[in-house]
Amino acid sequence: MNLTLHGYWRSGAAWRVRIALGLKGLDYTAVPHDLRIGAQASPAYLALAPQGLVPALEADGAVLTQSLAIMEWLEPLLPTDALARAHVRAMAGAIACDIHPLNNLRVLQSLRHDLGADKAQIAAWEARWITTGFAALEASVARHGGRFAFGDTPTLADCCLIPQIGSARRFGVDLAAFPRLVAVDAHCATLNPFRAAAPAAQSDAD
Amino acid sequence: MNLTLHGYWRSGAAWRVRIALGLKGLDYTAVPHDLRIGAQASPAYLALAPQGLVPALEADGAVLTQSLAIMEWLEPLLPTDALARAHVRAMAGAIACDIHPLNNLRVLQSLRHDLGADKAQIAAWEARWITTGFAALEASVARHGGRFAFGDTPTLADCCLIPQIGSARRFGVDLAAFPRLVAVDAHCATLNPFRAAAPAAQSDAD
Repeated sequence: MNLTLHGYWRSGAAWRVRIALGLKGLDYTAVPHDLRIGAQASPAYLALAPQGLVPALEADGAVLTQSLAIMEWLEPLLPTDALARAHVRAMAGAIACDIHPLNNLRVLQSLRHDLGADKAQIAAWEARWITTGFAALEASVARHGGRFAFGDTPTLADCCLIPQIGSARRFGVDLAAFPRLVAVDAHCATLNPFRAAAPAAQSDAD
Repeated sequence: MNLTLHGYWRSGAAWRVRIALGLKGLDYTAVPHDLRIGAQASPAYLALAPQGLVPALEADGAVLTQSLAIMEWLEPLLPTDALARAHVRAMAGAIACDIHPLNNLRVLQSLRHDLGADKAQIAAWEARWITTGFAALEASVARHGGRFAFGDTPTLADCCLIPQIGSARRFGVDLAAFPRLVAVDAHCATLNPFRAAAPAAQSDAD
């Protein structure tokens, strides 16, 4: 299958899909869109992905959007037991719905431009949602985790967790209260699919 | 199966799950938590759902959280074709990840208390994310929709869309630019599972 991933090196949502593609062993062509200059709002990209967000995955002519939907479509990375699947999807949702959307670039830009938030207020905002969400995730990993966020096999939860930890570090959030999350991150950092998906490994990284 | 849904009449995420349970024809006991007084942060509820968010679904002793994970676990409401499933999940994600989290109560409270946003700024914030997201959804429904957001059968996308339209109306957002979304909402409003799930029909509505 011919796969093209539209992304951006720093996009946490695109990073998730890069991990999932790597874990599936799927090759793809990366097309970067520089979010800092609004490249995702170009007419050509909007024709492909009307929401104007990355990632989008072209697969043999079809266009898939939304990182969770793309990763579900790849059909990887979920346990077989229904209840276990629900727990993994809940971990993924706790990040993809309750942390990441509050801290992505367009929202931080709105805080700054529309509400006049200063640097300290934005840093506090970023940290608030990350630490609130990570506290609950730490409890989930204590209950369900192993070498990975859920058990000893990588899942959707790790695809979401690793980029969110990367984002937390970039924002300077103290992770001392989340030793289990940090341990999962450290383990994943030893594995090729996670290493290849990291922002600094992308062709558009600066 | 013995089902207990922890929710709140105005919670859009709990509303989604009420619709899904109704579409599946599943009976459940509703346990309301008044988010306005922080009831979801009680020790008893946190022991059940460490994230301290509604909804949570108790199912024969297991506790499920995150509305998307709960609805997936119910196994309803998705087409059988893999690409169609991806489109439905993308619509659900465009709401559950990119609109709703920015406008829920805890975030609006933070805008007010931590950033000093006034009423007009909060209204503009609410409208911004709804109209941005709805513009893309209107395009998706134009492409994929029928009587429902995707085709002529209710899906996860409708479970997410109807509460988001309800929220948009409550916030006073002009929906004139989204005739297809409004038409889907009008159709759903004729159907019992959607009517029974509406906020005003809940025992804790005031």
